Parts: sequence; structure tokens; C-alpha cells
Amino acid sequence: MDDRALLDIIRPVCGNDTCSDDCAILPLPCGTLVTSTDMLHERSDFPAGMTGWQIGWMSVAVTISDIAAMGAEPLQIVLAIGLDTEERLAEIVLGAQACCEAYGAVYAGGDLDAHSELTLVSTGVGIIRDGEPVRRAGAKPGDIICVTGTLGRAILGLTGDSRFWKDLCEPQPRVREGTLARLAGATAMMDISDGLAISLYDIAAESHVGMEISSGQIPLPPNADMNLALDAALYGGGDFELLFFISEENIKNLTFPVTQIGRVSKSLKITMDGMKLPKKGYLHHW
Amino acid sequence: MDDRALLDIIRPVCGNDTCSDDCAILPLPCGTLVTSTDMLHERSDFPAGMTGWQIGWMSVAVTISDIAAMGAEPLQIVLAIGLDTEERLAEIVLGAQACCEAYGAVYAGGDLDAHSELTLVSTGVGIIRDGEPVRRAGAKPGDIICVTGTLGRAILGLTGDSRFWKDLCEPQPRVREGTLARLAGATAMMDISDGLAISLYDIAAESHVGMEISSGQIPLPPNADMNLALDAALYGGGDFELLFFISEENIKNLTFPVTQIGRVSKSLKITMDGMKLPKKGYLHHW
Repeated sequence: MDDRALLDIIRPVCGNDTCSDDCAILPLPCGTLVTSTDMLHERSDFPAGMTGWQIGWMSVAVTISDIAAMGAEPLQIVLAIGLDTEERLAEIVLGAQACCEAYGAVYAGGDLDAHSELTLVSTGVGIIRDGEPVRRAGAKPGDIICVTGTLGRAILGLTGDSRFWKDLCEPQPRVREGTLARLAGATAMMDISDGLAISLYDIAAESHVGMEISSGQIPLPPNADMNLALDAALYGGGDFELLFFISEENIKNLTFPVTQIGRVSKSLKITMDGMKLPKKGYLHHW
Repeated sequence: MDDRALLDIIRPVCGNDTCSDDCAILPLPCGTLVTSTDMLHERSDFPAGMTGWQIGWMSVAVTISDIAAMGAEPLQIVLAIGLDTEERLAEIVLGAQACCEAYGAVYAGGDLDAHSELTLVSTGVGIIRDGEPVRRAGAKPGDIICVTGTLGRAILGLTGDSRFWKDLCEPQPRVREGTLARLAGATAMMDISDGLAISLYDIAAESHVGMEISSGQIPLPPNADMNLALDAALYGGGDFELLFFISEENIKNLTFPVTQIGRVSKSLKITMDGMKLPKKGYLHHW
């Protein structure tokens, strides 16, 4: 069983609406709060060679990316740290704080615990003061499929291309782009941290639509092995770029660089170059 | 090194103000948000025999207790679940949701992960719409030291007194009492989940005061071994009662049962029956 199958156990309990986005949504009189929590731990999330500072940075960045994917502004991060050894604490905390500072959030402490394996859970609160969050449900047939940045860098870094090591260890969440996409009229959005293919399936399931993308349009890093890079972009993980959907009419409102990789269709099929796109990605398995 | 010593590594980074309370504090135009995060895991936090439902309940209850200790109303809980086996998920989630529901919070999903040891991190957001949070700093010489409920039950349950097993596994955070204490004018507050003694030290350090308590006034469960119960109350953990401080003038405003166990002093000493109270409690060690 993988984590998307397990999520189906939780759905009936907390309601489909609650389990379907990068963040939980809480409307308040002065804005809409969005909250995201992410567990990372040594064996599955921190490649050997990552520094403590990078571990702290990454733990915060993954959560800020989820907030960005709602089109929200990050306000505050709390970090629960399960430490195997006390030596790494100071570095981890400095990396966490640097990431908060880079994206305008407050690092507001958290919890300290002893754990057999280094385990970090960052939880972030963000706010939208001038509108509604962009959700996974909302993509409409005819919408253009857009991504930010270039994809596949994290897996290329993980598999030995040292030019991309920093992309893997110090992801840069797309906070500004998330807000601008929302203001431009994005109909659905999420980050592609589990890979592009599974993210297309996630949005398609929530929006009850299909997707048609072209492999040649997927933005890959220059000078990389194109076969490896395409595979990493589609089925890898660790790229904290945004995937969003916007009508042809509204695409002119975008004020930052994006790449158009395809169109939303009515058909419920997810295809690349006219063939079924495999539903694979970064998943936890039990 | 224990977790309070390690906290001193974090203090300079996130600011003393941020590291000093049960919750992080975030003022918004429509109220003050408080956020707490707590990591629990099998080996150190879930005694053998606890059900999955109780594990879910407890994980949420500890966080709601921190929110209560600020005098706030819990709004929303997210749960990051690191699962060793998928079998327990449904039960855990049902227990978590039951606790949210009992205290008026929304269980809003979270994160699922595979982990070698069952690890739960619950993060809660609460709000105060009509005033300021009660912090650890604020107790004043002359204030009366108050506690809710009876203390020591959790450790008695853990060490074999089956009458208290449910107190250990299904703690009942004092949400109503926390808000009423704040409205009555409590000057400082925290929960005593790490034991009464260490909590008195925590408040004394933040408020720059001393404490004088009487062992005979500490409320213990009826029919328990009094020596064991007193030791459990002072130095054990797992009792999610509130410790708060209030002036003699304001104590008449309290509208719920409390026990007065002593007085705040100017002297900076923490004493019980006139003797120095050992600074011991539930601490993680590395």
C-alpha cells in the first residue's frame, strides 16, 4: 500500500475536502489561514552528505512550498525535532531559520525530542488576505497546464550530477510565483514535490478532468542527460516547482516566466504525446 | 544534556520570547493565534497496551493542552503520522478525530510517512479573540499558585494502578479552565505535562520569582499510595492539568474548582515545606 492508498483510509474521517490539498484551510474574519505539516527523516529524506544546515533549510522549505502552492504568504513555522544526537541541533536550527527569513516567515520554536532516527516535522501557517486559496479541484477543460522553473534537478543531483546537489539539498519554494499565479486567476495548483506525473493525476482526480502533455515541452535543466532528466522530472521527486492551471484568457495576466506543457481535457485520460502517462512518482510504501 | 539545556541552543536563534511558552504566538487583526507542536513516538510515549485509538487521542490531547495553557480556544489540528505498519492508521485517526471533536477543533489531515518507529507529531492552532494569551512570564510575588484536578494519576497508571490507566492513555486537556483562568486574570500559566516541580521552575525562570508550596496541599488522587502519588505529582509527567498564578484580589473571579498549593515569593527560591524542591521532571536525555 502506498501513501495515496492510505489517504483513502483518512478521507472518510476528516472529510474529502480536508484531505485534498497541499494545506488545510481555515477561514478567519481577517483572512484565510492555510496550514501544512511535513515529516522528514534521515533514512528516507536526507541524502548522505547533506549538512545539518541543509537539513534545517529543507525541512522548512517543503512546508513553505505547500503554502506557496495555495497562493498564500507564509507567516510562521514551528519545528518538532526528534534528535538522534544533540550535536546537529544548532546547525539544523540555523538552516531552518535562514529559510524562514528568506521567505518572510517567523521561525517560532517548536518541540524537542530524543529519537532513534533524526526526524523533523515542520508545520507552517500562511495567510491569504485578499482572496481565496487555489486548490487542487478547479482545473477546467481547455485550461493551460503550466510549470515554474526546470524539472528533474533534484533527482539528477541525488544520482550523481554534482551541479544539481544544491538544488536537491536547498530547494527554493516558489512563494512569489504562487501568489502571482493566484492573482492571475490560476484555477488549480500544487507543488510537484512527488514528481510531475503523480501530481497531474492528483489534480485530475480532484478536478474530474484529464490532461494532455507533450514531453518536448517539459522544461529540463540544460546540459543534462535528457533521458535521465525527463524520467526524473516525470517520476522523481524533490523539485519544489509549482504546477498550475489557467484559462487561455487569463494566461496574459501572468507576470513571471512559466512553461506551458499541455492542456486540460474533458476525457479523464492522462496522456503524454498521445500515450497513457504512467501513474508513478515518489510514494512511501508499507 | 536534557531538553531544557538543548533549548538554550535554540533561544538565541529564535529569540527568547518565542521559545518560552507552551505555544508560539502570532498576532493577527482578528485575534491572537497560538500554535503548538508535539512529537510523540512509540518507545518513549506510548506504553505497551495502549490502543491505536488512544494513541490518536493522546497525540491530539497533548497539543490541545498546550493551547489551553495559553487560555486559547483550539481551532484546528494537523497530524504528521510516521507509520511503522499501516494496520493502525484507521484507529489512530479515529482517536485523533474524537479528541478534536471533544474540544471543538477540526481535525484537518496532515502528512503520512513510513517510519521505523511509530511517530506522531500533532500541531494545533488556537485563537484568543477577546484578550491576550497567558504566558509563563507574568507571575508576581504574592500571587497564589493554583492547579486544576488531581496530580500523579498518569504515573500511577503507568506503574500498575489500573484505576488510573485511562487517565494515562486518554488525557483530558483543561480547555474550559484555561480560558476561564485567563478571563479571571491569571498572570502566568502552563500545563504540568512534565511534572509539577519542573513546571514551577519553568514559570519561576520566566517570571523571575520564587515559589513556596506545601506538600500537604497538592491534590492527589483518593485511595492511592500517598508517597507514590506525591512523587508522581511532583516529578512524574503525563498529567495534563493546568498550573496557574493569580492575585489574591482576582482569585474570587475563578468560576471552577482549583486547589491552592502555595504562593509566589520574591526570593527566587523554589521550596516545598520550607526545603528546596528538587528540579526534576520528565525530561528527554541525549
